[in-house]
Amino acid sequence: MTPDGALAGGPAVILIEPQLGENIGMAARAMMNCGLTDMRLVNPRDEWPNRHAEAAAAGATAIIEGVRVYDTTEAAIADLQMVYATTARPRDMTMEVVTPCEAVARMKADETGCVRSGVLFGKEAKGLKNDDVALANAILKVPLNPAFTSLNLAQAVFVLGYEWFQLGDETEDAVLAVPKETRLATKSELQGLFDHLETELDDSGFFRVREKKPIMVRNIRNVLQRARFTEQEIRTFRGIITSLVKKRKR
Amino acid sequence: MTPDGALAGGPAVILIEPQLGENIGMAARAMMNCGLTDMRLVNPRDEWPNRHAEAAAAGATAIIEGVRVYDTTEAAIADLQMVYATTARPRDMTMEVVTPCEAVARMKADETGCVRSGVLFGKEAKGLKNDDVALANAILKVPLNPAFTSLNLAQAVFVLGYEWFQLGDETEDAVLAVPKETRLATKSELQGLFDHLETELDDSGFFRVREKKPIMVRNIRNVLQRARFTEQEIRTFRGIITSLVKKRKR
Repeated sequence: MTPDGALAGGPAVILIEPQLGENIGMAARAMMNCGLTDMRLVNPRDEWPNRHAEAAAAGATAIIEGVRVYDTTEAAIADLQMVYATTARPRDMTMEVVTPCEAVARMKADETGCVRSGVLFGKEAKGLKNDDVALANAILKVPLNPAFTSLNLAQAVFVLGYEWFQLGDETEDAVLAVPKETRLATKSELQGLFDHLETELDDSGFFRVREKKPIMVRNIRNVLQRARFTEQEIRTFRGIITSLVKKRKR
Repeated sequence: MTPDGALAGGPAVILIEPQLGENIGMAARAMMNCGLTDMRLVNPRDEWPNRHAEAAAAGATAIIEGVRVYDTTEAAIADLQMVYATTARPRDMTMEVVTPCEAVARMKADETGCVRSGVLFGKEAKGLKNDDVALANAILKVPLNPAFTSLNLAQAVFVLGYEWFQLGDETEDAVLAVPKETRLATKSELQGLFDHLETELDDSGFFRVREKKPIMVRNIRNVLQRARFTEQEIRTFRGIITSLVKKRKR
């Protein structure tokens, strides 16, 4: 629980004077993709609700419906305890500058201690005013190609959400997805394929140069080994061998 | 150098049957943000060049001008050696599924070995066809809110670019940015502020309860210490103290 009793679900996303409804909608979609829920607008250019925002949200209706609109940045952040300001431009201020990765790590740790965070995003093209940056505890700066750092508003929101989601996510870096009707082949099944293939190759005269046979067998086994056959694929390949052989034997 | 002699600059981004020029342009902008350069289109719905794409690229002109258009996915990936297919939907195929972070680590390692990679992105709303997925070495799946995994096309491209850029980036997690005309205060300068403040507080009767003075002093020093004053800010705060005292003394 936070000071005002709201449920904590990641940092609040605070868009200052957003101009295009489409960008608000795409930002909402990006938040929903990443499990963020709390969107706040300060002086949006167009009236709210905004049908362009709803369309661009592409189903992130819960975010759009929960949006709160404020007249000032001060009002929008009043209930928060830690605020980060996203900016790519260096400011002539003494402020800590953190990466998105570091920022979300701090927000997650803070959330555990019931400290509520929010992130300020400036208007399209212009970014945040210095007075808004000065309301923040730290600057959040996304490391990007120094020659082209201007991020689309929804992309900037997405970086925050993406890093937030990855922090708590436990997806394995790499897994072999196997359809549920089969499973990875055992070494005995793979050996069956090797034996079948090598017997037929012997029979067909493939190993003409006897002394080269051992290395040829090893090379064939290597590439088949790398493919990580399923039990079903072993059966398919044995069927292929049988079919090819049948044609030759006819 | 790659097999066809092209300069390697990160993975190729291959958009299959993209529908909206805006999305192609936003994807190009995202690539430019992240230092990716090689965009390829397979059967875009609208003719190419596309003015909506150019407008949405917001300055990523080099990417747009370098786009190559192909009739088939096979042709678009012909010069590549490793291909990843982005998809959120599980496919009934035996394929390795990797995170963006893992994928870019492999691509970077492969690039060192002159192995050229590319990533397939399916059309808006529908994603990749199974036949396109079957052309890839592995599936690239972005860990996201399981209840809302549908990423905007440009966001999907951005995830790839973002992870690619972060991998080679050496930005410090957190640094204190200090305007160049000043520097962080030394402890001696900070002690000067403490002494000045505490002397004036003594003089003004702030430490009425003598036995509480030590803890009050510690608490004041704690909060001032945390602020990490610059030398300039020390001077400003000493000016503030002098100014407030003057008012009282008048």
